[in-house]
Amino acid sequence: MEANTGKSRVIIDNVSPQIDGGKYPIKRTVGEKVTVAADVITDGHDEVKAVILYKKITDSTWTEAPMKVVSVDKWGGSFRIAEQVPYLYTVKGWVDHFSTWQKGLKKKFDDGQNVAVELEIGARMIEKAALKSSAADSERMLRYAHSLRNHPQMSEAVAAAISPEISQLYELYAEKSNSTIYEQSFNINVEFKKALYSTWYEFFPRSTSETPYKHGTFKDCQRILPHVAEMGFDVVYLPPIHPLGKLHRKGKNNTLNAKPGEPGSCWAIGSDEGGHKATHPELGTVEDFVEMVQFAKTLDIDIALDIAYQCAPDHPYVKQHPQWFKWRPDGTVQYAENPPKKYQDVLPINFETEDWQNLWIELKSVFEYWIEKGVTIFRVDNPHTKSFKFWEWCIAELNAKYSNLIFLSEAFTRRKIMQHLAKTGFTQSYTYFSWRNSKAEMQQYLTELTTTEEREYFRPNFWPNTPDILPKTLQFDGDNMFVIRFALAATMSASYGFYGPAYELMWTHGLNDKEEYYDSEKFEIKVWDWFADTKFKRIIKRVNQIRRENPAFQNTYNIQFIKTENDNVLGFVKVSDDGKNKVLVLINMDSRNTQKVFFKMPLATLEINAGDRYKMNDLMNGFEYWWQDEWNVIDLDPYDVPFRIFSVNSFNTYIQPPLPEVPDLAEYSGS
Amino acid sequence: MEANTGKSRVIIDNVSPQIDGGKYPIKRTVGEKVTVAADVITDGHDEVKAVILYKKITDSTWTEAPMKVVSVDKWGGSFRIAEQVPYLYTVKGWVDHFSTWQKGLKKKFDDGQNVAVELEIGARMIEKAALKSSAADSERMLRYAHSLRNHPQMSEAVAAAISPEISQLYELYAEKSNSTIYEQSFNINVEFKKALYSTWYEFFPRSTSETPYKHGTFKDCQRILPHVAEMGFDVVYLPPIHPLGKLHRKGKNNTLNAKPGEPGSCWAIGSDEGGHKATHPELGTVEDFVEMVQFAKTLDIDIALDIAYQCAPDHPYVKQHPQWFKWRPDGTVQYAENPPKKYQDVLPINFETEDWQNLWIELKSVFEYWIEKGVTIFRVDNPHTKSFKFWEWCIAELNAKYSNLIFLSEAFTRRKIMQHLAKTGFTQSYTYFSWRNSKAEMQQYLTELTTTEEREYFRPNFWPNTPDILPKTLQFDGDNMFVIRFALAATMSASYGFYGPAYELMWTHGLNDKEEYYDSEKFEIKVWDWFADTKFKRIIKRVNQIRRENPAFQNTYNIQFIKTENDNVLGFVKVSDDGKNKVLVLINMDSRNTQKVFFKMPLATLEINAGDRYKMNDLMNGFEYWWQDEWNVIDLDPYDVPFRIFSVNSFNTYIQPPLPEVPDLAEYSGS
Repeated sequence: MEANTGKSRVIIDNVSPQIDGGKYPIKRTVGEKVTVAADVITDGHDEVKAVILYKKITDSTWTEAPMKVVSVDKWGGSFRIAEQVPYLYTVKGWVDHFSTWQKGLKKKFDDGQNVAVELEIGARMIEKAALKSSAADSERMLRYAHSLRNHPQMSEAVAAAISPEISQLYELYAEKSNSTIYEQSFNINVEFKKALYSTWYEFFPRSTSETPYKHGTFKDCQRILPHVAEMGFDVVYLPPIHPLGKLHRKGKNNTLNAKPGEPGSCWAIGSDEGGHKATHPELGTVEDFVEMVQFAKTLDIDIALDIAYQCAPDHPYVKQHPQWFKWRPDGTVQYAENPPKKYQDVLPINFETEDWQNLWIELKSVFEYWIEKGVTIFRVDNPHTKSFKFWEWCIAELNAKYSNLIFLSEAFTRRKIMQHLAKTGFTQSYTYFSWRNSKAEMQQYLTELTTTEEREYFRPNFWPNTPDILPKTLQFDGDNMFVIRFALAATMSASYGFYGPAYELMWTHGLNDKEEYYDSEKFEIKVWDWFADTKFKRIIKRVNQIRRENPAFQNTYNIQFIKTENDNVLGFVKVSDDGKNKVLVLINMDSRNTQKVFFKMPLATLEINAGDRYKMNDLMNGFEYWWQDEWNVIDLDPYDVPFRIFSVNSFNTYIQPPLPEVPDLAEYSGS
Repeated sequence: MEANTGKSRVIIDNVSPQIDGGKYPIKRTVGEKVTVAADVITDGHDEVKAVILYKKITDSTWTEAPMKVVSVDKWGGSFRIAEQVPYLYTVKGWVDHFSTWQKGLKKKFDDGQNVAVELEIGARMIEKAALKSSAADSERMLRYAHSLRNHPQMSEAVAAAISPEISQLYELYAEKSNSTIYEQSFNINVEFKKALYSTWYEFFPRSTSETPYKHGTFKDCQRILPHVAEMGFDVVYLPPIHPLGKLHRKGKNNTLNAKPGEPGSCWAIGSDEGGHKATHPELGTVEDFVEMVQFAKTLDIDIALDIAYQCAPDHPYVKQHPQWFKWRPDGTVQYAENPPKKYQDVLPINFETEDWQNLWIELKSVFEYWIEKGVTIFRVDNPHTKSFKFWEWCIAELNAKYSNLIFLSEAFTRRKIMQHLAKTGFTQSYTYFSWRNSKAEMQQYLTELTTTEEREYFRPNFWPNTPDILPKTLQFDGDNMFVIRFALAATMSASYGFYGPAYELMWTHGLNDKEEYYDSEKFEIKVWDWFADTKFKRIIKRVNQIRRENPAFQNTYNIQFIKTENDNVLGFVKVSDDGKNKVLVLINMDSRNTQKVFFKMPLATLEINAGDRYKMNDLMNGFEYWWQDEWNVIDLDPYDVPFRIFSVNSFNTYIQPPLPEVPDLAEYSGS
């Protein structure tokens, strides 16, 4: 049908989502829903209809998805992504003459008017549509047309004319004539599952040796990896593995000059031993690294590298490309500063260099080097202190050349900057999660992340700690708070991670009043009890298993908070995109006291009819309950397990996730 | 300076205003301000600067207007329109290396660091800028550079380096290198003053005869016009002046069939005597009409015509262009309906006709016909029941061919539809003003109109009544309510109007429970006491004079409500775009009782320093007062004059509006 002619009376505007007028794509993974809305209006009193048009970029024709009115003149609908290729979407609308006729007919008939001519008009519309229909439908439609003209009772003719049957039948063959298609279509960047759902574990290779205080190696890491896999992690992120600067090396606790034997910060990259495309000799060779990456893959673990574009004063770039740095009148290179703070061991790159083209190509080649070595996931260090335009170009180039890459943006900074980095290509982003403590703060932050425009392009990755961040609540609120913060991260966000040994061993040694570690591993080799069998590790393992088995946890944007009559207990449900898997989570955010909580099940969301019984499976202990009420009550003891996770099984749920093997309850009581 | 290269580190986004991604222009008149905002960010810790870039479409270069930070990472600024030509605007940003250096220098010095090298860096920046400066400035700058290097006291060298003098001086010659200019620029449709500020009076030519119940003529109208001009109106709007349909003509009070001699609705246009390009014979010839238009111009009045694209059954179009109408199976043309309502005397045009190109051209030619006859202002009847795309095309074509046209959209319908008509070209719009009664409702509505995106393209025209609308408050709340609603319309909105004789004579005869007139002039000839000398008319005249003399009233978007401790009293201030004319208005919305009101002067807005005395001129009676307090109190007696209008004269106001001639106070006490 021709669209967008002078006869097209429908106006479409304000199509959402659109990021900065369509400059940036929205992001999805296969199976995720895209919800589209638009203002759809027409002149006069006629009825309008609207549909989403969407297609894979390779398709020649559009597919339609239904829309309906969500508020005055605002239409909404959704569709799901089926394949990992870029998609496009837009909106189409038209004047629906048939339902306009039905509505007018009914009003006139109800008003006592003679509607014989109206019925004739409808009969002709139906006959016209029947010409395009299948033989069977044609017969049915012609029967309707006949009945409109010849029914002895006008009331019954009218009833037939406005019946759902003829409406549905007509709809199949309706002329969507003189339609309007919104002039712009919008891009969806469809990525692989892991871009949304990933489970990260961070450790320093330097601390993996069996011999205390000996520098660990890539080979030592291979001893640790099976244990990390066993806990259910699928990404292991290593801080920089390159040669460390020898000039101005920092000592323990960030002191100005390292003593002999102190390893320095692994973020002060480069020395006479090489730069960003080399490995630190004490860790091993590039070949050792590749072997470790390959070994990790056998455990379904991807090794993520840290890309930190900055140089120690003895990095080869400084001599080879002096024009990439800022030189001072005293002949030194400007080191990194955030006055009055100084980072003498780190030289920032000057992105305003006249030689920027060569700089960009070289920096991109660092990614390429490691991708060729088997690395596809990168945690990018402080991307907000490097040129945004560089990132946009670099990530686009890499995504065009390679598939299934992940770039995690380590930007803890102002909201708009974090948003911009996500828009321009970063796959996942660190967040403010670490500093959201109360139930109200947490709900507000999650609501922002999952219900505003940000949800279309910003994929949160929740970290309760990092080597740079030990929040006060973890320093001062006791061991149970580690379990609570873990549960919050792992159940609310599809992607989460932690700085492994320090977290799972509940290391609380903070730096005075700062939210940083004392004796930080950034500046020294630590000795960890890697294989300790603790209650907390068993909880971590079980939750990661639940995440794997319940697709509802593999999305972040489906969180719906529920009403709980206790300010210490956060409750929410999540439903998988296909509607089949539904979970309820309740977390006691008070690490010291048992909290009793009354909470309201959102029956509509869960597709439970009021009064129906529904089955609740406690996924942590395998118990099964039948509930019937909207309001329920439970106790959460932080010294036992401070949270509960249920799968919800209503009668409308046809496919259940596999039930867990029933674990021994005692499993959680030791530590 | 080159912009938007790989070295450009500033990112600009979310530039506002932009209407539907820049698809539609914003609207302004000469002298009005444009306030622009944008997100401006850069990487790292460097300082950024941003400016608005704007230009007349005919200019080859951009002009800069300053912006400053209005909230985190959000910049704002404004500029004023100087000429009646289309303008463009966008935003430019760059890293400000000089102020970054100043800020770092100060922090390091405060931290006790040696800043000798820093001072050398600054001296070199200043020397470089001096190369581009005038001789005098160059000398001053070199003196600064010298003092940075050689000051015996480092503290004084630092003080010189961060002094406002060197900052301002450097700014003049600063390299805005590696800047970013937002990639899209946005259009401003600049129209003539009357597009924003106009004072409308509506009357039916049919009721202007000196002989009671005799059909009035264009010549009779010339008798009325000087009286309307005397009251201070500059637009006289006439309902349709075309031959009226003789078939299915409606009688008094919208009865189905007119009795012999009844004139019918003038919106049922066209008969064997002609259509939209003819005049109703009883009113006179086209030549008579042109003479009246010319006469009105001598009174500084523009005659506005009503364009109602619909046809009586005997309109010539029906025979000449049957394809432009919807024909029914019984051989009749579909008349207008909004079931169950019927408008048998009016046939709507079918904008889905295959012959739409010819239809569009013909309808446009109706405007052209009357423009050639001297009409430049059109009140368009129910534009929301005609194709939106037609309007967009038609108005653009007419504006390209003629200048200083006004199209007033008579769409009382859903918000998004009224907004769309305004976006696509209508100059002014009717509003919901008539149905906003309480102070809270009024404030909320005005806040929406003047502070949301709507303010950029939707120009309200406030009408307390029309021939179709007699709000209940005017029917039931007494004569004083006419004065109150008039004062609200005339002081809050730069454009307002009323259905003249019925309003100024306070005709309250409503149609039962509906907000319509009984014995409406739409269907009959009325006899009005056109020249009655009433208190209300004198108030109208005075307020229109105040509007003319005080530019603050010639804008709608400058309204700022003030705190009044009385829910019956609405108070606001307005400041003209050039900041020189400031007014305060207080209106008692209770038509029955005197209200005492404490109110708070917004001193900052009025540029009054706390504690300073300021002069208040009561513009209704010419009295002058000196006030000093922030809070003041007055009484408003609805039986006297239910409102007060002051001009506010602070010491920062250099040019005063002419003071009114002091009128005789007794002037307002008779009626």
